[in-house]
Amino acid sequence: MTLRIAIGPSTFGAEDDTPRRMLEQAGLEVVPNPHGRRLTEHEIIHHLHDCDGLVAGLEPLNRRVLASTGHRLKAIARVGIGTTNVDLDAARELGIKVSNTPEPPARAVAELTLGAMICLCRRLVPINAAMHTGEWPKEVTLGLLGARVLLVGYGRIGRRVGELLRVLGAEVLVCDPELNPDSLLHGERLVTLADGLAEAEIISLHASGDRCLLGSAEFDRMRRGVFLLNSARGELVDEEALIDALEAGWLGGVWFDAFWNEPYAGRLLRFPQVLLTPHVATYTRQCRLAMEREAVENLLADLGITRVRP
Amino acid sequence: MTLRIAIGPSTFGAEDDTPRRMLEQAGLEVVPNPHGRRLTEHEIIHHLHDCDGLVAGLEPLNRRVLASTGHRLKAIARVGIGTTNVDLDAARELGIKVSNTPEPPARAVAELTLGAMICLCRRLVPINAAMHTGEWPKEVTLGLLGARVLLVGYGRIGRRVGELLRVLGAEVLVCDPELNPDSLLHGERLVTLADGLAEAEIISLHASGDRCLLGSAEFDRMRRGVFLLNSARGELVDEEALIDALEAGWLGGVWFDAFWNEPYAGRLLRFPQVLLTPHVATYTRQCRLAMEREAVENLLADLGITRVRP
Repeated sequence: MTLRIAIGPSTFGAEDDTPRRMLEQAGLEVVPNPHGRRLTEHEIIHHLHDCDGLVAGLEPLNRRVLASTGHRLKAIARVGIGTTNVDLDAARELGIKVSNTPEPPARAVAELTLGAMICLCRRLVPINAAMHTGEWPKEVTLGLLGARVLLVGYGRIGRRVGELLRVLGAEVLVCDPELNPDSLLHGERLVTLADGLAEAEIISLHASGDRCLLGSAEFDRMRRGVFLLNSARGELVDEEALIDALEAGWLGGVWFDAFWNEPYAGRLLRFPQVLLTPHVATYTRQCRLAMEREAVENLLADLGITRVRP
Repeated sequence: MTLRIAIGPSTFGAEDDTPRRMLEQAGLEVVPNPHGRRLTEHEIIHHLHDCDGLVAGLEPLNRRVLASTGHRLKAIARVGIGTTNVDLDAARELGIKVSNTPEPPARAVAELTLGAMICLCRRLVPINAAMHTGEWPKEVTLGLLGARVLLVGYGRIGRRVGELLRVLGAEVLVCDPELNPDSLLHGERLVTLADGLAEAEIISLHASGDRCLLGSAEFDRMRRGVFLLNSARGELVDEEALIDALEAGWLGGVWFDAFWNEPYAGRLLRFPQVLLTPHVATYTRQCRLAMEREAVENLLADLGITRVRP
């Protein structure tokens, strides 16, 4: 019997059809998203009918949906990191394997973090704007060589940012309460948040969770002219305290890619020294393709299929 | 007899007095720049009187100046890469050793090139501008992972950019007529300029010399949407051909840090897709300090003095 694979994301294979061909070449029947948009609960139940695997986006994969597959569905391969749309308890009880693709997004986020960091420290946005008005605004700025950078959170993304910073010769400080100091192998220095904030010339947030880490007391500890980058979550920073620090001229530059609510059009827009991007740190063509390939590989492995290389 | 060292650059030790202290701790008498600006020929002749070494900026160190030191001057340590302000033939004939500090600027240029590359490919400037007007401009852009990047010129700076790009997972193509293919050790691919231009998604110029490498024929070979970066020299690119390509919408983004004449306020200013910086690729505090330290180390070595670490 040919195994059937339902495709959740409407954009699957849009940039490059390699992942779809990988499924077909493994002898699977591929059922594309029939609506060209994110499926509702009703639609995904219908879509999963008689399917053995799902390449998943952000469809609501709750207990009702998973139970509706009558034990035929065996594997869900999420294209992306987050699995909050999947009822993992129900999946476990129903014997459905769930996988995700954390590596490609981590690389894309780390790459954009590095770009935004250089952009802020070298003041590319204001210097470019001044040049376009006919000025010649030469100034000496902060390079990354030897700069003290505090990484708050040292999971997959933080470690990758740390790796890039070491190649550039930065001095990497790490704050992560869950970290085993033995896992610091490359010259990073483990610090408390308080010590790190007081020392760092650049602070980049890569923590998980929603707990606010930077409130007014923490901004008060920071050095004048510090650069703050947040590609993780808005909730890690108290917006009011951040605005106060910006109004006081305390921060050299700020980048936010994640916000308290999205789409964000709040008070940070008023500050020219804040670089803003609309939660696009993973939005590269390469990241999309790599996540889709990896999801297909995960699905084939979870279904016990030896993959035929395309 | 205490050796006397004249200091050329008016900014020497301004950020950090370590380099000056290194000279003093080696037992040398330090004679600072007396005018607080670049010295004229007349002034540098006067300044070099009875000096054994010079920490040099861009003073005119021509034959007249060097001969005026009456064979007492033994070493010139340039803070920076270029030595076009030094008559090297005259120095050799007069037994004056000349050194420079190419490594710190190469690192600073490579770092800014990488930042500008990510900035262009991820469209940070237009996305940030749109965010500041209240939009939420999500779009999928080009990441560096697996991107084909052509480096035109593979000297000190090009190699450093190549090293950073490899860490980010880019596919590095190299075009350098003076390069020995055996020196490609890390997976770069040596190509002709014509082939590289046709293949690359990103082109970064790191060639020396003033010969124009990119004219209208070369722009015609490039892929639509290519990103072009120039931190080397304006003369490498034909301005007219570049303007034509920009007006035709052929280029995805452009960064120029070096121009045909400086200060530059020419026609590139009209194009929002051109990121402009005023020849500041080496203008970091760290680069300044590292060049000054290295110049002092070179000077001490050329004067045969064992350096006492500060």
